[in-house]
Amino acid sequence: MTIKEEMFSRIAKVFKRHGGITIDTPTFELKEILSGKYGEESKLIYDLQDQGGELCSLRYDLTVPFARYVAMNPTIQYIKRYHIGKVYRRDQPALMKGRMREFYQCDFDIAGHYDPMLPDAEILKILVEILDELNIGNYSIKLNHRKILDGIFDVCGVPKEKFRTISSSIDKLDKLPWSDVKQEMVKEKGLNESLADKIGNYIIKKGGRDLLEELRSDKLLSKHEISLEGINDMEILYNYLECLDIHSKVSFDLSLARGIDYYTGLIYEAIFEPNTISNLCSNMKELQFDKIKNDYTGIGSIAAGGRYDDLVGIFSPKKKKVPCVGVSIGVERIFSILKFRLSTSTIKTNNTDVYVMEFGSGNKSPSMVKERLQICKELWNSGINTQFLYKIKPKFRQQFDAAEKDQIPIAVIFGQDEIANNQVRIKVLGQGEQNTGELVPRNEMISKILDILKKTSKNNSYIF
Amino acid sequence: MTIKEEMFSRIAKVFKRHGGITIDTPTFELKEILSGKYGEESKLIYDLQDQGGELCSLRYDLTVPFARYVAMNPTIQYIKRYHIGKVYRRDQPALMKGRMREFYQCDFDIAGHYDPMLPDAEILKILVEILDELNIGNYSIKLNHRKILDGIFDVCGVPKEKFRTISSSIDKLDKLPWSDVKQEMVKEKGLNESLADKIGNYIIKKGGRDLLEELRSDKLLSKHEISLEGINDMEILYNYLECLDIHSKVSFDLSLARGIDYYTGLIYEAIFEPNTISNLCSNMKELQFDKIKNDYTGIGSIAAGGRYDDLVGIFSPKKKKVPCVGVSIGVERIFSILKFRLSTSTIKTNNTDVYVMEFGSGNKSPSMVKERLQICKELWNSGINTQFLYKIKPKFRQQFDAAEKDQIPIAVIFGQDEIANNQVRIKVLGQGEQNTGELVPRNEMISKILDILKKTSKNNSYIF
Repeated sequence: MTIKEEMFSRIAKVFKRHGGITIDTPTFELKEILSGKYGEESKLIYDLQDQGGELCSLRYDLTVPFARYVAMNPTIQYIKRYHIGKVYRRDQPALMKGRMREFYQCDFDIAGHYDPMLPDAEILKILVEILDELNIGNYSIKLNHRKILDGIFDVCGVPKEKFRTISSSIDKLDKLPWSDVKQEMVKEKGLNESLADKIGNYIIKKGGRDLLEELRSDKLLSKHEISLEGINDMEILYNYLECLDIHSKVSFDLSLARGIDYYTGLIYEAIFEPNTISNLCSNMKELQFDKIKNDYTGIGSIAAGGRYDDLVGIFSPKKKKVPCVGVSIGVERIFSILKFRLSTSTIKTNNTDVYVMEFGSGNKSPSMVKERLQICKELWNSGINTQFLYKIKPKFRQQFDAAEKDQIPIAVIFGQDEIANNQVRIKVLGQGEQNTGELVPRNEMISKILDILKKTSKNNSYIF
Repeated sequence: MTIKEEMFSRIAKVFKRHGGITIDTPTFELKEILSGKYGEESKLIYDLQDQGGELCSLRYDLTVPFARYVAMNPTIQYIKRYHIGKVYRRDQPALMKGRMREFYQCDFDIAGHYDPMLPDAEILKILVEILDELNIGNYSIKLNHRKILDGIFDVCGVPKEKFRTISSSIDKLDKLPWSDVKQEMVKEKGLNESLADKIGNYIIKKGGRDLLEELRSDKLLSKHEISLEGINDMEILYNYLECLDIHSKVSFDLSLARGIDYYTGLIYEAIFEPNTISNLCSNMKELQFDKIKNDYTGIGSIAAGGRYDDLVGIFSPKKKKVPCVGVSIGVERIFSILKFRLSTSTIKTNNTDVYVMEFGSGNKSPSMVKERLQICKELWNSGINTQFLYKIKPKFRQQFDAAEKDQIPIAVIFGQDEIANNQVRIKVLGQGEQNTGELVPRNEMISKILDILKKTSKNNSYIF
């Protein structure tokens, strides 16, 4: 959680940098809201039992609940919202790859009627900023456009009603070879073989801006209206990405399809591509790199999203149409990369600054627990993060070990003499046990500690 | 969410001040884990549908999952953990009182074998600090001890197997008069009437430390071993509360029972007690006070908890016993108090500092959208929270209105002239529209803006 909270905080910082405000939606939605929105993935939705009342399901992503929220609130015509929350999929878990049945997503979405590709470009800028803030190392962002893809299907002769299911097949290309995907299209989805091969010839194309020229000169696509809309969008987008200086981080890849039904325009996916040993783990033998790299290239996308202009309209009672574009950060997958790279044992999980210790109490001497509580109270009331040992007559060693184990920087130490003289000893820990700390009048304790803390600035940036 | 996030952040600050580390547990647990832990409230648990695999339920609180976690991890012998998360209850919602089916709880728990009442006292200190940090106004914390309560039941003649169900009846005393509760004990739970009256004579007692003396001099209780353990605990606790200077915030109340089965020692509950009009709402007529006050006294407890020494053992395969004590902050109820008190319309929900505007583009003049994107890029890359209007040729008025609506403090403005001279205008907003801002060389834009922001320190403390 220490790592995850640091991740969330860096991600939220970027979201806020781009004007995002946060909303919260319920963990469960009406079952009918989620039905029919996710294509073949719908089978992974968790349903609640019918215990009386409405039939509900656990949310599958943060996008559909967001669209439902915008639709339900007629006054919302535009909004930039971010949401860090859990979603649920009845999938086969794969811990190593960060794939769980319950996992966090971090989403940013821009809703509203705007000029083409401006929000889309900012979303990609946000994605780049986040992946850089998280220091994950090498990655690439694949782009494609549903309208170009649909144009390809159309010119190849795929019947309209099969567009989405063929998209689903193509979406598997990151895990399966083309021969398997083609097999699925032919055997399961009833395309004839030459048609599948035509599709194959298109979706094999990858590149940058140059690929747009190639598509424009394609004799079929260049006359296809929908497809041309997509090509024009991509042209505008590339202009904006160059202004934002992130064009080198993206690649145009016609094989990117995305499994989810609701996308209507630009789609994208970020892939982790460890290219050096240091991307993975600082203290690992070079020899192991290939093996580990294989584990992680199987991790798939670490962020994805796209434009979905029709989803709000589906939920709106008055068919209010609000175009949207968004991105979802796959934090759990990124977490599994970071966790592997870090030496988790050295991460300080608490925020305690001071440990209050008594010495000299024991079988014969009385407990000084009341004085310890009073000192803790003063520290807490001054906002200083403080702990003490829950023993009436604690051994000194035991208190010292507890402070050391929690990597606490400062000890406030006292015995009968200090109490009698209205003093305490303040000792900076982790510098050897020789000295017994600085003797300080009790009423200077707080300011002295605040001074020390000011000098030892806390931050978690060492984490990753 | 702006209010809630501010609440969570203040609460987490106190949790960390006391050495808390956070863990996350799944939203659903195995159904069998939750069964039989909540007494009569168990009927409110949400079950997931059986879609193959294990039978699961949504978590009902954060305490049982915490105990399960400690039990499952044999190396954990002690831990101070906090958890801010959602829980689920199939209850009748009451929005006004902040009672929902899905709601946040903020829990702090201390697990481990320690000397009596030291962790318990710190938990109460944490509770006081949180209620004060949230500025909720007047509140009181009721204390009682399960062992004293069980002693009372025993000396009155209640059979042991009815202890918990009679506790449940007494727990209703905050909503029902004694006559109704007595009725329930007699008619539904089969106590005879004189026995119920004996209980009534005990549980009517309230007070401070003095009540301990009264109980010690009670001829039945003073000879009852379990009850004496409870009385001794309370004596020690009061000593510690005095050291921590929070003894005046608590009251000892024998009618406090808590509905949940798993408590074994000290129990407590914080109640919101609006005593002045300003506790509720600054701009309300005095006459309305009584009506509103009634709405809010119905709000019930705003925090509760207690000691549960046996729960970890129930889940532990090796019957590892780890005593625990904890508190749960009812943030949604506190939220409903704060929300009512605040004028929500004035709260700034975004964190944007700069709005980038172009002027002079229109039908005849070319768009300067590329320059706008480049300026935004520079600001974002310097970590400055920035927005712009997603229009290629935006009207100046429209950009200005958008910035004003979002209460954005600074505008960066430019037209063709500024571009030609490599300059921008920086205008502090909200100071009248007379001036057109300060003309600044483009390469000084960032430092100039950072200067302005440094002077206008951001904080949300005005909120509540």
